[in-house]
Amino acid sequence: MANTRILPPADNAYQYPLLIKQLLLSAPRYAPDQEIVYANKSKYTYTDLVDRIHRLANALTDAGVKPGDTVAVMDWDTPRYLECFFAIPMIGAVLHTINVRLSPDQIVYTMNHAEDDLVLIHDDFLPILESVKGDIKTVRKYIQLTDEAQAKSTSLDSAGEYEALLANAHNCFDFPDFDENSIATTFYTTGTTGNPKGVFFSHRQLVLHTLAMTGSLSAFDEMPMLRSSSVYMPVTPMFHVHAWGVPYAATLLGIKQVYPGRYEPELLVDLLKEHGVTFSHCVPTVMQMMMATESIKTADLSNWHVLIGGSALTRGLCDAGAKLGIRMYTGYGMSETCPLLSTTHLKPEDLELPLEQQTTQRIKTGIAVPMVEIEITDPDGNPVAHDGDAKGEVVARAPWLTQSYFKEPEKGEELWQGGWLHTGDVASMEPDSTLVIKDRIKDVIKTGGEWLSSLDLENLISQHPAIAAAAVVGVPDEKWGERPHALVVLKPGEQATLEDLQDHLKQFVESGEINKWAIPGKIDFVDDIPKTSVGKINKKLIRDQLDN
Amino acid sequence: MANTRILPPADNAYQYPLLIKQLLLSAPRYAPDQEIVYANKSKYTYTDLVDRIHRLANALTDAGVKPGDTVAVMDWDTPRYLECFFAIPMIGAVLHTINVRLSPDQIVYTMNHAEDDLVLIHDDFLPILESVKGDIKTVRKYIQLTDEAQAKSTSLDSAGEYEALLANAHNCFDFPDFDENSIATTFYTTGTTGNPKGVFFSHRQLVLHTLAMTGSLSAFDEMPMLRSSSVYMPVTPMFHVHAWGVPYAATLLGIKQVYPGRYEPELLVDLLKEHGVTFSHCVPTVMQMMMATESIKTADLSNWHVLIGGSALTRGLCDAGAKLGIRMYTGYGMSETCPLLSTTHLKPEDLELPLEQQTTQRIKTGIAVPMVEIEITDPDGNPVAHDGDAKGEVVARAPWLTQSYFKEPEKGEELWQGGWLHTGDVASMEPDSTLVIKDRIKDVIKTGGEWLSSLDLENLISQHPAIAAAAVVGVPDEKWGERPHALVVLKPGEQATLEDLQDHLKQFVESGEINKWAIPGKIDFVDDIPKTSVGKINKKLIRDQLDN
Repeated sequence: MANTRILPPADNAYQYPLLIKQLLLSAPRYAPDQEIVYANKSKYTYTDLVDRIHRLANALTDAGVKPGDTVAVMDWDTPRYLECFFAIPMIGAVLHTINVRLSPDQIVYTMNHAEDDLVLIHDDFLPILESVKGDIKTVRKYIQLTDEAQAKSTSLDSAGEYEALLANAHNCFDFPDFDENSIATTFYTTGTTGNPKGVFFSHRQLVLHTLAMTGSLSAFDEMPMLRSSSVYMPVTPMFHVHAWGVPYAATLLGIKQVYPGRYEPELLVDLLKEHGVTFSHCVPTVMQMMMATESIKTADLSNWHVLIGGSALTRGLCDAGAKLGIRMYTGYGMSETCPLLSTTHLKPEDLELPLEQQTTQRIKTGIAVPMVEIEITDPDGNPVAHDGDAKGEVVARAPWLTQSYFKEPEKGEELWQGGWLHTGDVASMEPDSTLVIKDRIKDVIKTGGEWLSSLDLENLISQHPAIAAAAVVGVPDEKWGERPHALVVLKPGEQATLEDLQDHLKQFVESGEINKWAIPGKIDFVDDIPKTSVGKINKKLIRDQLDN
Repeated sequence: MANTRILPPADNAYQYPLLIKQLLLSAPRYAPDQEIVYANKSKYTYTDLVDRIHRLANALTDAGVKPGDTVAVMDWDTPRYLECFFAIPMIGAVLHTINVRLSPDQIVYTMNHAEDDLVLIHDDFLPILESVKGDIKTVRKYIQLTDEAQAKSTSLDSAGEYEALLANAHNCFDFPDFDENSIATTFYTTGTTGNPKGVFFSHRQLVLHTLAMTGSLSAFDEMPMLRSSSVYMPVTPMFHVHAWGVPYAATLLGIKQVYPGRYEPELLVDLLKEHGVTFSHCVPTVMQMMMATESIKTADLSNWHVLIGGSALTRGLCDAGAKLGIRMYTGYGMSETCPLLSTTHLKPEDLELPLEQQTTQRIKTGIAVPMVEIEITDPDGNPVAHDGDAKGEVVARAPWLTQSYFKEPEKGEELWQGGWLHTGDVASMEPDSTLVIKDRIKDVIKTGGEWLSSLDLENLISQHPAIAAAAVVGVPDEKWGERPHALVVLKPGEQATLEDLQDHLKQFVESGEINKWAIPGKIDFVDDIPKTSVGKINKKLIRDQLDN
């Protein structure tokens, strides 16, 4: 550690810990009357938001919540949830955003692991918790959320209904100062095996993530996502990485926000049209559902900027969006990274092309946002060349990465190595610092001393006219380390042999896109490719089946 | 302190101190070829900037600079200075930006007080230090800066010329991590009495100031100052509050920067035209000098946004600027506040008016930027009403306020009171959170239980057709506490009596703008009003003269 000069602070100076309450200072000054909309149900202003956050803090305190407690939420994407994003950490409690898509057993596991003291729960989710009620260990009280005139009756120990509690609570809460490293939020990620793992973020981390986000999403004229005149509608769930942290940034700037509640494609499109939404973030599946609606055909989407994450933005989706006038960008990050690491970065010359021809730039993983360091490294942790060709694992440093897994730091031993967070993604880096994700490290095929992207090979195989779908995994090989093994599904009525497909791939060897050992020696013709519950190719299962 | 939940960081996780080196990560990724221009002399790219910062760090280290040392700079506003903004704090040393406008005695006082170890000095300033050489106590070496082919010879102990040292230095420096509370910069403010006082800012404070600045100056469509397509030229000196910190923010975003060197009005206007400058910050005096040039008449200034600070943006200057198409905004802050506290905040409806009619909004002190708390308080520290009328002292909290005066915390006892930094400014706050500065607290006249702004009264007196200039100070009065006492200068050939001026002011009593005790009982007709060295009315001198 360098021997720098540090003076002790003056006795009377104010030590300024970075706290989420500070993110709420500016909106009521900049835009007190700006609207926050709840689908087709209700709307209110930023002045109301602040008032309701104070009331919620009092209601929670009245219900016995103390600093250091954990308060969980099971709700759709609503302004109520936004109120929880602020009020719960602002009183010094930990916000646990429960993943309502997990199985009841997994949900109760996360509740017990996070040691939830109080749960705010929407009527729609009551049956889930009622079904596992006996297994819930730490919850003392429930606050009910409803979109109806009256909350449903429940066997859970209800402390009352949210709106009634807010109406009765005092509208002024004196939010305390405390250590900026206090945990503000936690939520759980699921792997293919084992129990969900908790990640957690401090007040300091969320404040810094928010401030850096305004730098990256506000300042660039080629990608004007977060501007004062923007209309923001999140379309990734608030329980998942705080809806990518954008609600905090939108609130900081006093931007109009539209919360859709449940993700019903027709409703989402109606909200887009009604409110002139200009900025959303979305996963490819939901985007496809929205693009498949009838009503989207009559929408003017030429000012809708959408950050796509969760899985890769494919050329097909980006092209199809461009045909509708939608401007899509890749956003890259993960639960462990709060999440923002990089986005598509467009330059003025990129915008000179017609939208349909901008896809190549838009689908790249992009450039690291300010304050983020990204490197790609070989298995020994040494950086590989930034030549657009060499592949390495993506590693990152930034002021907002989870320190470890919640209460299980030993599970994070692979996460943090040598002072860098290891993402488990394999990528190349172009000379202009553009990151291009190639694969998950566990799916990449290590063959002949090189890393072969299973995704790249699947794309090449799929270009054969007889092939409907392809999956490629690596299988152990004495000579090459690993060799690719493909599963392919033929299109109805089409025929192809192993040799046909190998011949097809040879053209890519000749053009230099792949090495000759990338051509699979074995290809299985199958009826179906195993998928996970969220529709991704289940490569773990394929590898297990090939092992047996 | 609330008992919040904090987990110890995982052993292997990276602790991320906020350091100035992180502000340099993004520009070479976003805009490696973007230009940084030095007046009509030279230009280079962000790639070059990073290269030169590494070389400078090595050159300084070769010259014996260690972490914890202090390195001072005496230069005009140049890309060299920008390199010093980064390289000096990034090696763990303290950057002392010497105010070259101080007297030689004051300069040497600040150098000894800051304990400068090494000084980078432009040829133009050699005579100053040579004249006080015997009084300089801690400096071991000088590095010479020049815009000529060869540096001047000097009796100071020169370690060589800057460009030659950079050319010979290695272009890779491994910038260390260290405590984010390490002092990064220091500089000195002058009062009307006593020695200059040092303020200082840590790495953490400068990083947070920079990130919040991108939020406030990038995101608002009505005031697009810091955008990727902006062209930035500072016109307040880099030695004064790091040119308001904007060079750090412009660098973070990879924006084109134009450094003017010396402030020669014709040159400044030429640079505006040649580079299509879109954003500057400026004090009123220099702006007036630029507006008085012949060449500005042929400039297209319709895209030039200028943040005015240092002294108030007057209606007259803003109107005159509007006639030329210049968009001016008030920026408010002070040396002790890093400096940004608030700016003009325009709403869409403000822009619907012609530029000439936007002055009323543009000259207000504006709305506190994100992460800043501003309050106005009575002498007991209680907030006064936000009704646009009640006056109080402006107090502030933010993550980037100086902790105290450098090595003299006792001098800061009035600065920090009750956990708020006391600015010494008197203002009212409008119901929509807009701050309007009225006066310096030491100049405000406490009369009849109310605060009367000396500036307001001077403006009203000046509206009399016979009056060329007016100055008002408070003088003690047994009954009223203080009463206003005016000095006025008559226009050539004009006449007016005490009664004429009192009658003139009565109309403002009738219209409710002032109370009747605001009418001065005594008015001195003088030939000249005493001014300070920077052209402000010297009210301290006027009060002293009236006392005797």
